[in-house]
Formats: sequence, C-alpha cells, structure tokens
Amino acid sequence: MGMKGALIYGPRDIRFEERADPEIVEPTDAIIRMAASCICGSDLWPYRGAQPIRNPPAPMGHEYCGVVEEVGSAVRNVKKGQFVIGSFFASDNTCPHCRYGYQTSCQNRQPVSGAQAPYLRVPLADGTLVATPEIPNAEMIPDLLAISDVLGTGWFAADAANVRNGANVAVVGDGAVGLLGILSAKQMGAERIIAMSRHESRQRLAREFGATDIVTERGDEGSERIRELTGGVGADSTLECVGTQESMWQAIKSTRPGGYVSYVGVPHDVSIDGAKLFSTHIHLHGGPAPVRRYLPDLIDLVWNGRIKPGKVFDLVLPLDQVAEGYRAMDERRAIKTLLRT
Amino acid sequence: MGMKGALIYGPRDIRFEERADPEIVEPTDAIIRMAASCICGSDLWPYRGAQPIRNPPAPMGHEYCGVVEEVGSAVRNVKKGQFVIGSFFASDNTCPHCRYGYQTSCQNRQPVSGAQAPYLRVPLADGTLVATPEIPNAEMIPDLLAISDVLGTGWFAADAANVRNGANVAVVGDGAVGLLGILSAKQMGAERIIAMSRHESRQRLAREFGATDIVTERGDEGSERIRELTGGVGADSTLECVGTQESMWQAIKSTRPGGYVSYVGVPHDVSIDGAKLFSTHIHLHGGPAPVRRYLPDLIDLVWNGRIKPGKVFDLVLPLDQVAEGYRAMDERRAIKTLLRT
Repeated sequence: MGMKGALIYGPRDIRFEERADPEIVEPTDAIIRMAASCICGSDLWPYRGAQPIRNPPAPMGHEYCGVVEEVGSAVRNVKKGQFVIGSFFASDNTCPHCRYGYQTSCQNRQPVSGAQAPYLRVPLADGTLVATPEIPNAEMIPDLLAISDVLGTGWFAADAANVRNGANVAVVGDGAVGLLGILSAKQMGAERIIAMSRHESRQRLAREFGATDIVTERGDEGSERIRELTGGVGADSTLECVGTQESMWQAIKSTRPGGYVSYVGVPHDVSIDGAKLFSTHIHLHGGPAPVRRYLPDLIDLVWNGRIKPGKVFDLVLPLDQVAEGYRAMDERRAIKTLLRT
Repeated sequence: MGMKGALIYGPRDIRFEERADPEIVEPTDAIIRMAASCICGSDLWPYRGAQPIRNPPAPMGHEYCGVVEEVGSAVRNVKKGQFVIGSFFASDNTCPHCRYGYQTSCQNRQPVSGAQAPYLRVPLADGTLVATPEIPNAEMIPDLLAISDVLGTGWFAADAANVRNGANVAVVGDGAVGLLGILSAKQMGAERIIAMSRHESRQRLAREFGATDIVTERGDEGSERIRELTGGVGADSTLECVGTQESMWQAIKSTRPGGYVSYVGVPHDVSIDGAKLFSTHIHLHGGPAPVRRYLPDLIDLVWNGRIKPGKVFDLVLPLDQVAEGYRAMDERRAIKTLLRT
C-alpha cells in the first residue's frame, strides 16, 4: 500500500514522497479521502526558514475536505461516505472553550497535519468535521476547500474586528486571508472596504470580493491615507492579515479610537508597546481562527452559491507538483495553490 | 488676590504655595469653586520619579467637582451656580471620537490640571461638565468627587472588560480604581468577583463593594488560582488596574480564551509579545477612561443612593496638608486622600 504526499526536509526543500497510509489510531479518529488539498500562507514560514521545522522530514498541509473512508469505533455522528470539512486544529466541540466558540483553544485540541496527500487522519472526528448536505459536484470543491482555513480565518478576522452594517473597514494584507477578509466584511454589511495592496491581480480580486478603495502606501503613510479616506476619523474595523511588526502598527494606527483591530496570522517578532497601545484606544482581538464555529454557516453560504471563496486559488497543480506550488506562492506568482489529489 | 494650591517641584517634593487665581482664557472656559479635591494613583508616578515632570513647579490634581463661579462668553449650557462634575481631559463632546463615546480621544481634548486648589479653570465647559440635579449636601461630596476619575475609570475598566450578567470577573490591583472596578462589575451583574489583594483593609473594602473571593497570590501563581476558582476555565472578564508588565500578564493569563481584558492605568514599561498574546485568544481594550461618557449615569446612581464610591477615601486632610496626603498614599497607609478645600 502506501501513498505519496508532501514532506518538508528543510527551508525551500519540499519533496513528494512515499508515506505510510493514515490509519485509525484513536477510536475517535476518521480517515478522509481528500477531494483536493492546498498550500497555506502559514506553510511559507517554515518554507522560508522563518520558523523552525520540528522533526524533519515533516508532513505538510492542514486544509482539507473530502469523503469519509473510515471512522473509529467511538465516532457517532460522522459517517462513512459523507463529504466533510474540518480545520487545522481538531477539537472536541464540547469543552468550555469550544462552547464559547473558541475551538482552536479546545482543552483537547490536536493539530491536523499531512493534508497535502490523498488521505488524511482527522482526530476527534465528531467534534471537528461538519458534513455538507450532499456530495458536492466538482466545481464546488475549491469553494468548500477554502472554507477549511483561508475563508474561516478571513471570516474570523472580520468578526473579531467587529465588522457591522455600514462600517468603514480597512484590510492590511492582500494574501488569500486578507482577500477573503474583504469578502467576509462585505457579507457582514461593511459600507466601505479599503484594501491595502500593491499587486494588480490581487487588487482586482479585492475589488471583485467587495473592496471599494485600494491604498498602495504602507506603514505610517498607509495609515495616513486610511485616515484621509475616512474623513480624518480612522477605520471602525481593521483586519491585520500579515503578522509582522509593521503590519500590526499599520493596522492599529489606521483605526479610530474605540475601533477594532483583529489579527489572525501568527505574529512573527511582533512586540506591542503598552503605553503606545493605551493611547490609541483601540480594541484588539485575534488568535488562531476558530474555524469550527463558522463551518455550518460558511458551508451554507457556499452551498447556496452566495459566495465563491475558491476564486483565491489562481494556480491549480497536480499533487505531485506540490514543490512548484510552494515556489509560486513564495515568489508571489500565485495567491494560493490548489493541489489536485 | 491669589490662592494657594499644590505644586510638584520634583520627586517627593509637593508644596502648598501661592498661585495665580484661575481666569477665563478662552470663551469656552468655566471657573469652578472646588467642593473638594483629591490625590490620584497616577499622581504617584511623577511623585515617585517614575515619570518625568514637565516644567516644574507644576500644578497638580485633575479630579474635581464644585460650583460654577464664572463662564466664558461662548458657554451655553453650563450656568453660574450649578454644581458640576468633569474629568481629567476636557472634551468638546461633539467631534466623531466623542460621539463614539471616546471623549478622552476628543480631537480637541485638553488636559485639566491644578485641581488640588480652591479654584479651577475647566476648558470646553459645555462638552466637559455635567451638572447634578440640585446642589448636593455635604455628605454626598466624596461620592460625587469619586465619579470624576476613580469611579469613572473603574467603570470603564468593567465596561471595557465586557462584564455581563452572571460573569466570572477577576480584578488585578487593589488601589482605588481596582476597588471601584469591583463595585462597577457588581452593578453590571457579575456573579463572581475575584479581587487580587494582599492588604487587609483593602480586602475588606473589596468585599464591601462586591468581591466574592480574594486571591493573595501574584504573577503566574495568581493566574493559576483564578483558573482553579473558575473550574479550570479562566475569568470571563479581567480588569487590569495597575499598569506594570507583571500585572498585565497576570490579567491576560487569568482570562479564558475568548474572554476580555481591560487595562486602564497608563502602562509603565509594558511590552506585549505578539505571539504570546495570539495564543491566549483574549480580547484586549483600554486606554484613558472616557469618563464623560458615563457621567450622567454615574451621577444618577450616586444621587439615588445606589452606590457609595466615596468609601475609597480613607484619609481626609485639609488642602494645606496635601504633601502628607501624597506621603500616606505613597506608603500605602491610605487608599486615597480627600482634600478639603
């Protein structure tokens, strides 16, 4: 038996190699046959050497949807043959943190990894996986796959930034999460959505998803432009979708006193000065997106054709070309790579 | 003419000296005859040399209530003879930030200072001052004076920490603001209020204001106790009322994922690591308390005898003994000093 999947050996060293078939380990596990997989912006941190790789070679990928092949003896709700979506942390969905909607802080959470492969083991299947109403047709797969992480994270960014009907919203970061943050803010009723982007193809998608304005300036100049565009007031809600010191302060300074800043990418070397933050008067909320909270609603929106988040996949490759998928995203030739499994 | 008031010459050097009578400078000013004044926890930062003193000798004090003696030609709503309360920043109460309830970030804000004196000039009188229904009797003065800053700040702490009916609340800091944060959380319907305090007299007042539990441990041990007391979950809302690195992290770590942390004292040498904050999943909000937003409601609560925030004044001195008032607070012999003017 065996299958081939993506393994990272070191910075810029992704290989498509033989791996053991995933198996049921705990009775709460499920095995999924992947409908498709993809590469996440966060996969680029270890790829670029900006984050240590634990126990290389390590299986990569944490975004997934597909058909349940097998379930453990303790799995009650998830059934063989269902089409399901889950996210990057498995969660029991019953602990206090899960019940408050913070499933990525589940007291029993477990990372899901190795999704850039034809099959995947998902722990805590009943808590983690949500089924679609029926088996979807092939055209819907990219939209459903996007829910698993990049839309779920963009949605959390908009929700954590308290986007409301009629709001002025700024989005820092034109990666796939930022772009789907725009789509999410639009769905939540934002009136004005200012995308901060310098890349023409991303600007185009930003507008398609609902951006009303594009700002190309960065740092303090960028914040100054946001202030000008909002009548000298600042944004009500700003989504920080990058995770650097510069992007964090750009987001904070773009926001009005009493406004909301969300941050959804793991901050890398970010340090926030308490006294400076105090004087800005903003609300700050973020963390690993609790995608599980939003899965039922997001599946519903996609299923009914109200949103097409799969548009962020501007490169489609067969799984065996996964290394090229990483290169294209690293060089910003692609926003996000979908891998046909 | 002339009057005597408190001036700071340098660290631990407060003098009661002759100063010029305050006068109407701008047509939007008012002059108030102080009913009483007091010393703020934040006055201790320059007193202890932990914050530079600009242009010494500098007049001290920013908490005030009293009778309007005179108004400038452009003042419309505030009338001579009214009893009024204001707070430490004068605000126009009409700019966008004010209309959102963040009057301490008013686009035209001006600091109020020199309140440890018999008379005070208040800029932007119409935006800043709120009158009581009638002239209060003497017993109510400490309660009304407390509204001006220390209750207003404690109330903001509870509001910014999103205290809701039935909530588990933790309060870091047993100074006057922390104690009135307890009173505020109680008013907002908190079920459990855990005060972090090691001082017996402050513990007593904490319980009187509504604390249900006292934790004497600090730092990680303190957060661990909060977690134990909340069934392993963490507080829903934590009020950080100190402003140091240790207190900030104690507050953050005491809070459950998805919970709320407020911080209302100017942070001194506080730096927040982005990646650590990310993993806690908390909401963070704070800044200079927009006391003006709460003045009408807080006056109403005091006027109707529903709250007695003046209990935080455990030392009453005549104004000419202001230096002793600072010493007593510095040495933690007094929670808060009221100065009879």
